[in-house]
Amino acid sequence: MRNFSSKLLENAVDQISRLPGIGRRTAVRLAIHLLQQPTEETDALTTAITDMRHRIYSCRHCHNLSDEEECEICRNPARQAETVCVVQDIRDVIAIENTEVFRGRYHLLGGVISPINGIGPGELHMDTLWKRLPEIKELILALPATTEGDTTAYYIYKHATALRPDIRVTTIPRGLSVGDELEYADEATLGRSMLNRIDFQNSFAKP
Amino acid sequence: MRNFSSKLLENAVDQISRLPGIGRRTAVRLAIHLLQQPTEETDALTTAITDMRHRIYSCRHCHNLSDEEECEICRNPARQAETVCVVQDIRDVIAIENTEVFRGRYHLLGGVISPINGIGPGELHMDTLWKRLPEIKELILALPATTEGDTTAYYIYKHATALRPDIRVTTIPRGLSVGDELEYADEATLGRSMLNRIDFQNSFAKP
Repeated sequence: MRNFSSKLLENAVDQISRLPGIGRRTAVRLAIHLLQQPTEETDALTTAITDMRHRIYSCRHCHNLSDEEECEICRNPARQAETVCVVQDIRDVIAIENTEVFRGRYHLLGGVISPINGIGPGELHMDTLWKRLPEIKELILALPATTEGDTTAYYIYKHATALRPDIRVTTIPRGLSVGDELEYADEATLGRSMLNRIDFQNSFAKP
Repeated sequence: MRNFSSKLLENAVDQISRLPGIGRRTAVRLAIHLLQQPTEETDALTTAITDMRHRIYSCRHCHNLSDEEECEICRNPARQAETVCVVQDIRDVIAIENTEVFRGRYHLLGGVISPINGIGPGELHMDTLWKRLPEIKELILALPATTEGDTTAYYIYKHATALRPDIRVTTIPRGLSVGDELEYADEATLGRSMLNRIDFQNSFAKP
């Protein structure tokens, strides 16, 4: 896409196409869409983005995104401080909150250990996790089912149990998705779920 | 996607997901991407969008988007004023300019006649086209190969020849697949179809 008749349009398209997963053609389509809407629409969009980027906090306890220094969950006395679920980022918090089964708190690492991308434990929110350990009874590792996720989980498990030998470290099991057929499950998932089988009477969702 | 811990984030996600083709999950991913970038990145994005939306002109001759009242093409004396290519919007101008075979000027309708969407000739830039007719020798109708595009082309053909019986009205041949939009055509096909344009009255499928 060359030959724009407007530098203003070209600049907007350049900026929009810097977003992940947005190609140049999509950026042109989005820019033209904005030009066809009332200016108020565009202003609402840019204001919302600017406000979010400049005014949002990372919760000083758990690093969840928040409009205040402490996030809603950490401020909520009904959420158990002794059960902490370790996740990558806010998308995982939203996903788990949507299940409405978890009453503990979170700790957001901001990513997972990935040497190939230059991300070691020092690039993640580990120090604040170690500081929280004294008040934690159970640490749930809800990290991605990838090599990086497993590496990160193992790193946290080793450090947490070294610092607090009495802590309980749990993780979400690998298994079939609800509604899945066994024959379509991959061998690694099925193998791990066979090895980590649980008592049938404990396998139902509790209210 | 419910349960956001931040109204600022939620508001940004709401606004981003109003864009066409951007679902809620993608909007969350884009918002989190912006939060992970330096604030300068977000500011560059919002400024570019704001500047575009507030400062861009619609060329007073052809309705092309422009940074000034008259677009680059209408200001360029090397572009033949007597050959005018009628298109839907700037995406089509960009597509045709990229073929580098056209030395005339454009007229952007801003859409096509679409009764189902409440778009009649009055909603399109027809009046300014009729005003340009006296200086036009050839009117090239480069509209989408859809029912709406054909209807619009026929409407313009009837009006233009009624006002100026000596005008030559041409159209790009069906190099496009029926149902395709101009912006998605490859440059070679579009370039060939621009060069091999045919008389409008011969352009209908014969039984």
